[in-house]
Amino acid sequence: MSTALIILAAGKGTRMKSDLPKVLHEIAGAPMLLHAIEAGAVLEPQRVVVVAGHGADAVEEAATGHDDRIEIARQTEQLGTAHAVAQAAPLLDGFDGDAIVLYGDTPFIRPETLTAMAEARKHHDIVVLGFEAADPGRYGRLVMEGETLSEIIEFKDASDEVRAISFCNSGVICADSSTLFELIDAVTNDNASGEYYLTDIVSIARDKGLSATAIACDEAETLGINSRSDLARAEAAFQSRARAEALENGTTMPAPETVFFAYDTVIGRDTIVEQNVVFGPGVTVETGAHIRAFSHLEGCHVSRGCIVGPYARLRPGAELAEEARIGNFVEVKNAVLHEGAKVNHLSYIGDAEVGEASNIGAGTITCNYDGVMKHKTSIGARAFIGSNTMLVAPVSVGDEAMTASGSVITKDVPDGALAIARGSQVNKPGLARKLFEMLKSQKNKRDKGAG
Amino acid sequence: MSTALIILAAGKGTRMKSDLPKVLHEIAGAPMLLHAIEAGAVLEPQRVVVVAGHGADAVEEAATGHDDRIEIARQTEQLGTAHAVAQAAPLLDGFDGDAIVLYGDTPFIRPETLTAMAEARKHHDIVVLGFEAADPGRYGRLVMEGETLSEIIEFKDASDEVRAISFCNSGVICADSSTLFELIDAVTNDNASGEYYLTDIVSIARDKGLSATAIACDEAETLGINSRSDLARAEAAFQSRARAEALENGTTMPAPETVFFAYDTVIGRDTIVEQNVVFGPGVTVETGAHIRAFSHLEGCHVSRGCIVGPYARLRPGAELAEEARIGNFVEVKNAVLHEGAKVNHLSYIGDAEVGEASNIGAGTITCNYDGVMKHKTSIGARAFIGSNTMLVAPVSVGDEAMTASGSVITKDVPDGALAIARGSQVNKPGLARKLFEMLKSQKNKRDKGAG
Amino acid sequence: MSTALIILAAGKGTRMKSDLPKVLHEIAGAPMLLHAIEAGAVLEPQRVVVVAGHGADAVEEAATGHDDRIEIARQTEQLGTAHAVAQAAPLLDGFDGDAIVLYGDTPFIRPETLTAMAEARKHHDIVVLGFEAADPGRYGRLVMEGETLSEIIEFKDASDEVRAISFCNSGVICADSSTLFELIDAVTNDNASGEYYLTDIVSIARDKGLSATAIACDEAETLGINSRSDLARAEAAFQSRARAEALENGTTMPAPETVFFAYDTVIGRDTIVEQNVVFGPGVTVETGAHIRAFSHLEGCHVSRGCIVGPYARLRPGAELAEEARIGNFVEVKNAVLHEGAKVNHLSYIGDAEVGEASNIGAGTITCNYDGVMKHKTSIGARAFIGSNTMLVAPVSVGDEAMTASGSVITKDVPDGALAIARGSQVNKPGLARKLFEMLKSQKNKRDKGAG
Repeated sequence: MSTALIILAAGKGTRMKSDLPKVLHEIAGAPMLLHAIEAGAVLEPQRVVVVAGHGADAVEEAATGHDDRIEIARQTEQLGTAHAVAQAAPLLDGFDGDAIVLYGDTPFIRPETLTAMAEARKHHDIVVLGFEAADPGRYGRLVMEGETLSEIIEFKDASDEVRAISFCNSGVICADSSTLFELIDAVTNDNASGEYYLTDIVSIARDKGLSATAIACDEAETLGINSRSDLARAEAAFQSRARAEALENGTTMPAPETVFFAYDTVIGRDTIVEQNVVFGPGVTVETGAHIRAFSHLEGCHVSRGCIVGPYARLRPGAELAEEARIGNFVEVKNAVLHEGAKVNHLSYIGDAEVGEASNIGAGTITCNYDGVMKHKTSIGARAFIGSNTMLVAPVSVGDEAMTASGSVITKDVPDGALAIARGSQVNKPGLARKLFEMLKSQKNKRDKGAG
Repeated sequence: MSTALIILAAGKGTRMKSDLPKVLHEIAGAPMLLHAIEAGAVLEPQRVVVVAGHGADAVEEAATGHDDRIEIARQTEQLGTAHAVAQAAPLLDGFDGDAIVLYGDTPFIRPETLTAMAEARKHHDIVVLGFEAADPGRYGRLVMEGETLSEIIEFKDASDEVRAISFCNSGVICADSSTLFELIDAVTNDNASGEYYLTDIVSIARDKGLSATAIACDEAETLGINSRSDLARAEAAFQSRARAEALENGTTMPAPETVFFAYDTVIGRDTIVEQNVVFGPGVTVETGAHIRAFSHLEGCHVSRGCIVGPYARLRPGAELAEEARIGNFVEVKNAVLHEGAKVNHLSYIGDAEVGEASNIGAGTITCNYDGVMKHKTSIGARAFIGSNTMLVAPVSVGDEAMTASGSVITKDVPDGALAIARGSQVNKPGLARKLFEMLKSQKNKRDKGAG
Repeated sequence: MSTALIILAAGKGTRMKSDLPKVLHEIAGAPMLLHAIEAGAVLEPQRVVVVAGHGADAVEEAATGHDDRIEIARQTEQLGTAHAVAQAAPLLDGFDGDAIVLYGDTPFIRPETLTAMAEARKHHDIVVLGFEAADPGRYGRLVMEGETLSEIIEFKDASDEVRAISFCNSGVICADSSTLFELIDAVTNDNASGEYYLTDIVSIARDKGLSATAIACDEAETLGINSRSDLARAEAAFQSRARAEALENGTTMPAPETVFFAYDTVIGRDTIVEQNVVFGPGVTVETGAHIRAFSHLEGCHVSRGCIVGPYARLRPGAELAEEARIGNFVEVKNAVLHEGAKVNHLSYIGDAEVGEASNIGAGTITCNYDGVMKHKTSIGARAFIGSNTMLVAPVSVGDEAMTASGSVITKDVPDGALAIARGSQVNKPGLARKLFEMLKSQKNKRDKGAG
């Protein structure tokens, strides 16, 4: 069975109090919209249509940037969920298969739930996703007759008897695509809000003799995100699952509650991740690596046996080969460190390559930016870069070469050579004591002047 | 109605195990005493009297440093709460209005509660604040007859019947100021502890034909702080409220439980505060700013569109104009960064001004201290400070000027000039290899000598 | 009464998914095995025998490295708990006293529990440790007749009546050493698993007319660690206790849930530990010290009145005398800072001594490593090390000496002298503007070439 996802992502999200469209607020480093799209991936959809409205340009950019096969329908006025789905009709005209309506602000529906819906579709024309609500409150109620969904009744239209039902409507709905759009055509806005409700299609379908059913998921899967508190809770739920998985897969975390994963973090077996580690998107950590406390990693690759941190910052393009070592207060960006290379203290390594077993002294900086362009630094194997060496790129240092501490290296250093570029030392006897005296007397004068 | 606050702050707080007076232990960056005073601010008091005892000098300094209109009464002996309040009598002699007794170690009474007490005072001579205790334990019990408070009975004097009452005494009490002191004059220490109890004034008042009532607050408002555990719980309660407010007002926090606000933090709408951010006192963050993980901010101002961190430390006097950027392992103190200025890596910027759109290279340090005094560094607009530049203050660098990497700048650099102050590079062919050999052979000898 | 501990530590811990033997996974900086050994220390054992199997070499090294009196028995095949204990028999042959069997993966049995077992041994031949299980599940059941333990029945052999018993077997057992081994000799593997169960000794003992009893501990004490989740929970339990103790003893922690102690951390009264502080093993912090946020301490000593952090990293051998000050982005390793010494910003101080009241400027580095060996830096009292000074060890700087900012110090600096080692400044008028122009035009060409 072919499937099309229709993802409603047009809402403003007033309660977010944000200029950013609601569905672009991030969970674990990715917009919630992408989580919703990824949730639908289990159905292997042939088509994905995102219905954008508020901030449609930004939504389109995020969606198509993620996957350029995603199609965008624009809803210029927000006239209700049926109206939103209707915007996808021209794009899906002639599509032969099922359409399932998902929501960009409901990112956590489980794969099992969607496959169960697909399974139920084999026996019913329409499948609605419901949930047993702990507190049904003002949700629409699903009225079941055995396995058949006879009606969805909005809370405000519900009798006391119907309000006693705790099986509620999530809004997720699945039907044959052309059937769906035909039913939607029959929806009117003849109600208190003057909106076109997608839920109305169930009774319309039943009137036409079509069959409907509802299947149940956990309430947690269907909770929408409407405020920053909801967003924080969704993030917490994501992290909680990610931490449990990492522990299960053989990562030691003394304080898992202080480790934050991104949606795509990959962590090998027998790794250690200490307290207060933040993973941004695009990180792979291999077996046996050790990420120490207070480290921050984004877009990087940490190989087997590396030790990183504490207080290491790996930025996009940081590529650590086996047994490399990044120490404290070190930033690495767009740089390859070959096997066993070490950058232990207070350094910035950007746009660089560091050869096997080379040692980069404390305070070393690759001066990669000249104010206009970025340039590259190459360091050979088994080189020794003295503390506080400035490597003014483009520049290269050869294998087994050395730089003297405090040198500013502007010219290439050949293999095996020692480069030195610094002033020579002069001691001026007694001058420090005189200076201290002088400064103190100046300060006294200044203080008196101020008094 | 004029109001005077009488804040009891004389206790030692033995269970704190501290040399610091209990009421000066801090919550969210301010002594709990100041939280108690601020709680009373809703009553717009004409007079605020703090009754100090243990560590009275320090308490006085904290209180008057906060607001120099605060008056201090000293209680040299701790003879009970009535005795403590009595110390305020000489200061409030002739004061025409209400007096309300609050506690320096009970900092979280809500404004609504205090205004409800003030309202109740319109109908009763004495208003006591009570609470429904989940576990009444050894609290004093409030005996009510309808709306009338007939008596406060200490636990140890209570019959089983009275002990069954769960409406308990918080100690907060409000009455006309001169009435209060008259009643206190009648309190005796004729009891097991030999102390003068403020609660005794209720029965004395009733004997005199005065009316008393009690109103109820949440138990959480009245919990006193008696140990470091209590202090940590009070801090947690504060943070919990502050985080909820920030979320509500439109701040995104992926992990609100790792963000710590100060009592006076101001955060604009559509800001992002990542994991593990600590705000000390005096911070304002404007709309659209982004505070990245592991940042620490105190006494600073972050404007619209700034990006700060990760691992940024902004100290008092850091003033970031719009779109400024502070990166990792950067400390900024008493320095103004104009629009679009960037300090991205491993720098110390103190006592400085950095012009619009200037770029400060990695490892740059404003050498502001000569061992005796601090001096200022001025950098113009669109300047480019090369990596690891030492700016030996007082010194200035002009607009569109540049400094070469690794330069020590001791003299002013004119607009548009390039300043260079470093040794020139010499490469010594093969010398690195020889040095490695030599060092290894030395090490071998040393190791053998040690063996 | 002499006591021998027999600690079973041979298991593989398959669910840990680790190459490291299970009992070597760490809690609070020490292998769980050492926590188990330390739990037994309350019995002042004359002998400690660890039964090692999987990863026996590593287990032996950890155990004997901790205390070289610990003896190792090897269990080459895992044939059950009785078989494991039997491996200790040759070592304890002729030992006159009690033997108690503990488990390397059950590290949190309380001292009170073990002393209660020792006490019960005065009246019974065998003492088993049991616990009231909230959910008895598949634990073995302890069948008591009054004070007498009549039998331990495995779950799978238990009748419904026995399964209704909630008093369960922890596996910890105590008996006279030679009795224990005699009973174990009689255990057979005639059961479904084909294993030798230690629990069988109870019924064997009863058949021989010996008396047995069981005493109860909290279920939490006996929970074994079988997965990384269990390990994280054990760590959390440890931290929770350690934080409560520190608060109780007079440490202020605004966010105790973000402070991580090691098994041996010592913290004085009236200390402050801010948010996000990690203590590795071997740290002592004296009264009145203040550890600021985001600090990481291992193997160091912080004296009275020191202020450390934020973002300070103290590594093994860091020794701070009174009133010393370590600031942000500073790493200290194997270095003594005398009274009032200050290292406030962005520095690496390793293999060094810094005299009383000396001030180390921002960006200073002790260049202690020449690529082969480490060398020492000595700085006298009241010295002033200018910002970004490289101290190329071995080197010394005298009392009241100064170094100029940006100097590379390779020769000793006498008392009171000023050392200067840097290039002198040249300003090239207009050259920065020309350079910017040139670079921009190069970039334009490059961008066009790419386009």
